Amino acid sequence: MKRMVLSILVENTSGVLSRVAGLFSRRGYNIDSLTVGETQDPAISRMTVLAHGDDQILDQIRKQLQKLEDVIEIIELAPGESVTRELILVKVSANDEDRQNIISIANIFRANIVDVAIESLMIELTGNQAKLDAFINLLKPYNIIELVRTGITGLERGSGDIQEFNFD
Amino acid sequence: MKRMVLSILVENTSGVLSRVAGLFSRRGYNIDSLTVGETQDPAISRMTVLAHGDDQILDQIRKQLQKLEDVIEIIELAPGESVTRELILVKVSANDEDRQNIISIANIFRANIVDVAIESLMIELTGNQAKLDAFINLLKPYNIIELVRTGITGLERGSGDIQEFNFD
Repeated sequence: MKRMVLSILVENTSGVLSRVAGLFSRRGYNIDSLTVGETQDPAISRMTVLAHGDDQILDQIRKQLQKLEDVIEIIELAPGESVTRELILVKVSANDEDRQNIISIANIFRANIVDVAIESLMIELTGNQAKLDAFINLLKPYNIIELVRTGITGLERGSGDIQEFNFD
Repeated sequence: MKRMVLSILVENTSGVLSRVAGLFSRRGYNIDSLTVGETQDPAISRMTVLAHGDDQILDQIRKQLQKLEDVIEIIELAPGESVTRELILVKVSANDEDRQNIISIANIFRANIVDVAIESLMIELTGNQAKLDAFINLLKPYNIIELVRTGITGLERGSGDIQEFNFD
């Protein structure tokens, strides 16, 4: 079992997301997370896919992705050689008693309080997965009403761009 | 033309992303951004989709999404009643002359420098779309080597959860 983060540069067409997602699902592979948004060129989008599974099948998926017409470039974001980040928003129940404790936890993680209601707080945090998981664990004793995560996004370290980083 | 942010609670199955994306692409609708990740319950994921288009067709897509078996709940994140955020990573060329200027811009936006190479900087920033767009505009005079954005994610303001916020 391997955990793989793929960064995929694609033409910004209406069917590309469906085709990429379809390649994974046809093999019964679940995508753990996926983010897609425009790059500095609006005609080109960049997807970041986190998946885990059998080495051989992931390699097959990768090769098939490269054959898709809309796919310009595809690289694996290797740990250590890349920066990966994720954003979460968490809504937590907070009565008068708990509010200060929750704010203290948020401060330790340099998280931002983005909404306050009478009985809840909404907190925004950015970081790598380990940091986000630690934060969520600390909030578990309080009631987490909702949680949304963007999924991982990332870039390679150093001065190159994705086209130069493809060593296959 | 309408800009719509949909928050979709789905069963975490291997085909759900492909089915949701397919609904948009079959009508020729481009998804501007999409994020999907697990919620506090690993069996349930939450997608956030940003799309723009004709009111009537977007309403149709929304109704068809609700008919999908994997879709538990779907709401529109209305501006003002919700908090939406996005995360970007930008790699910018930075020689000795430009580096301090770029760092100053990053500081004004409270962005984080996450990687430094001899000829480049990588910067992480979280915010709403207006803030991110302003930041990218300020960096344009320098050479943006690569840029990746997660796409929008969001939650409703207040103490309720997505199940309570569906007023349809």
